[in-house]
Amino acid sequence: MSEFARLSLNQKTVDRWTMRETLEGCARAEIPFVGLWREKVAGLGLRETVRLLRELDLQVSSLCRGGFFPTSSQTAFEANLDDNFRAIEAAAKLGTKVLVLVCGAAPDHDLNKAREMIAKAIAKLAPFAAQHKVKLGIEPLHPIFAADRSAIVTLEQANDIAEQHPPEQVGVVIDAYHVWWDPKLEAQIARAAKQIVGFHIDDWIVPIPDPLLGRGMMGDGVIDLRNMRRAVDAAGYTGPIEVEIFNRAIWDSPGDQILERIKQRYLEHVLEPSLEPVKQEYPV
Amino acid sequence: MSEFARLSLNQKTVDRWTMRETLEGCARAEIPFVGLWREKVAGLGLRETVRLLRELDLQVSSLCRGGFFPTSSQTAFEANLDDNFRAIEAAAKLGTKVLVLVCGAAPDHDLNKAREMIAKAIAKLAPFAAQHKVKLGIEPLHPIFAADRSAIVTLEQANDIAEQHPPEQVGVVIDAYHVWWDPKLEAQIARAAKQIVGFHIDDWIVPIPDPLLGRGMMGDGVIDLRNMRRAVDAAGYTGPIEVEIFNRAIWDSPGDQILERIKQRYLEHVLEPSLEPVKQEYPV
Repeated sequence: MSEFARLSLNQKTVDRWTMRETLEGCARAEIPFVGLWREKVAGLGLRETVRLLRELDLQVSSLCRGGFFPTSSQTAFEANLDDNFRAIEAAAKLGTKVLVLVCGAAPDHDLNKAREMIAKAIAKLAPFAAQHKVKLGIEPLHPIFAADRSAIVTLEQANDIAEQHPPEQVGVVIDAYHVWWDPKLEAQIARAAKQIVGFHIDDWIVPIPDPLLGRGMMGDGVIDLRNMRRAVDAAGYTGPIEVEIFNRAIWDSPGDQILERIKQRYLEHVLEPSLEPVKQEYPV
Repeated sequence: MSEFARLSLNQKTVDRWTMRETLEGCARAEIPFVGLWREKVAGLGLRETVRLLRELDLQVSSLCRGGFFPTSSQTAFEANLDDNFRAIEAAAKLGTKVLVLVCGAAPDHDLNKAREMIAKAIAKLAPFAAQHKVKLGIEPLHPIFAADRSAIVTLEQANDIAEQHPPEQVGVVIDAYHVWWDPKLEAQIARAAKQIVGFHIDDWIVPIPDPLLGRGMMGDGVIDLRNMRRAVDAAGYTGPIEVEIFNRAIWDSPGDQILERIKQRYLEHVLEPSLEPVKQEYPV
């Protein structure tokens, strides 16, 4: 079995590539999984995307993204739920088990209310997701995004919500960049156990070039990714390990180079070091 | 009693001002407390600073800062502890009850080890602080600083450490910018209770202009400061409320204007709205 059997490329990592370029690039690099974004799927068309995935023998690790639940009106809340129902249908057609949720922030500075709306929305979506054999993956974001992207900022919160539902309906997505700082990380990964539906890898560069578009390639920052991967494995997660890096400098590099770098860093910083001894030539 | 009886100006908010300008500015604006920084005290000299504080009838709410405990060698650890002993002595001479601790980050990416070193350092400092009638105030920083400034990133962590010590030796400093995102904030403020030794106010601007130097004036961001102040009051804290804003654009404004703006925003966003009815003139 290949060392890259669990590797997935989230297509945001090669943002300049079209859907077709991304899928063909993964096939060339022998990366078996790809994480897709709804707008890119819409760009090529759902049907053609599915056809190309089959032709190239690629699997979809997750679809990004549902969520953004807190709204300032009931009408907007319902309209957004509708959009999330469509996202679940798209995930099912793409053959992925996971719709990633970026839950959204408070429109009016009331974090508690936003958190209630998020829990309510997930409860409405979960049975529909289950009918489509899609799991909702709650992704806690780094607290730096609490004001504009997600009122769910710790794995503990995500676990609290996920536990309200059967594990075949709702789980959590662990992204290294978002959770590495958390003093409760190890305990909450262990608690998440069979609820883990995604593991994203990237790095935290010091100082961060930009909160949104300055995430690092594995090994360029301070996160102990190998240790985190061990903890996620120990909790029982055996699914794809998805590389998702929003970084302007990386986007400006040629896509094939990015994929080669990812594979190299994945071996160096995420997998176990090879146990085979280095071959040495001794003089006779 | 003045509405500004609890107001304190942390001198970093008017970073362009010298110590003398800062103290004279506070006296002119009738702000009774000032939060000082060690390097600025060194600039004017400790003795002259103390003399001027007395002359102007100002009190020191806190001295910034001790901390930065995790180091990569035992020698560096001891040298840093020595520096913290000097900081405690300076705090005592300045007549403040609080030395603010910014605890420091992991030199080698090992957060757990860094956290152990922090707890160990505080245990070594606490009795010395108590002898000088100074409390160590553990300030959890926003997780955005986990890699370079503080491995202590939640109030829960700070409370966990503080509770290992008598409340007259070690407490916590709550800074709105650092903690507002935390889903456990209310519970941890209530838990902190008599351990709270400082309350800092500022705001989280969206999007943040810069993690370090883009903190907002109260009212310019998304934090519900009045609600947080109520929670801190309800926990039993009756001490100074210190305005600490690191912001390049504010630094470029004239100091007296900054102080007037602070007083206005303090009334509008932090204190209770006045209950006195607005006087209206009716035609006879």
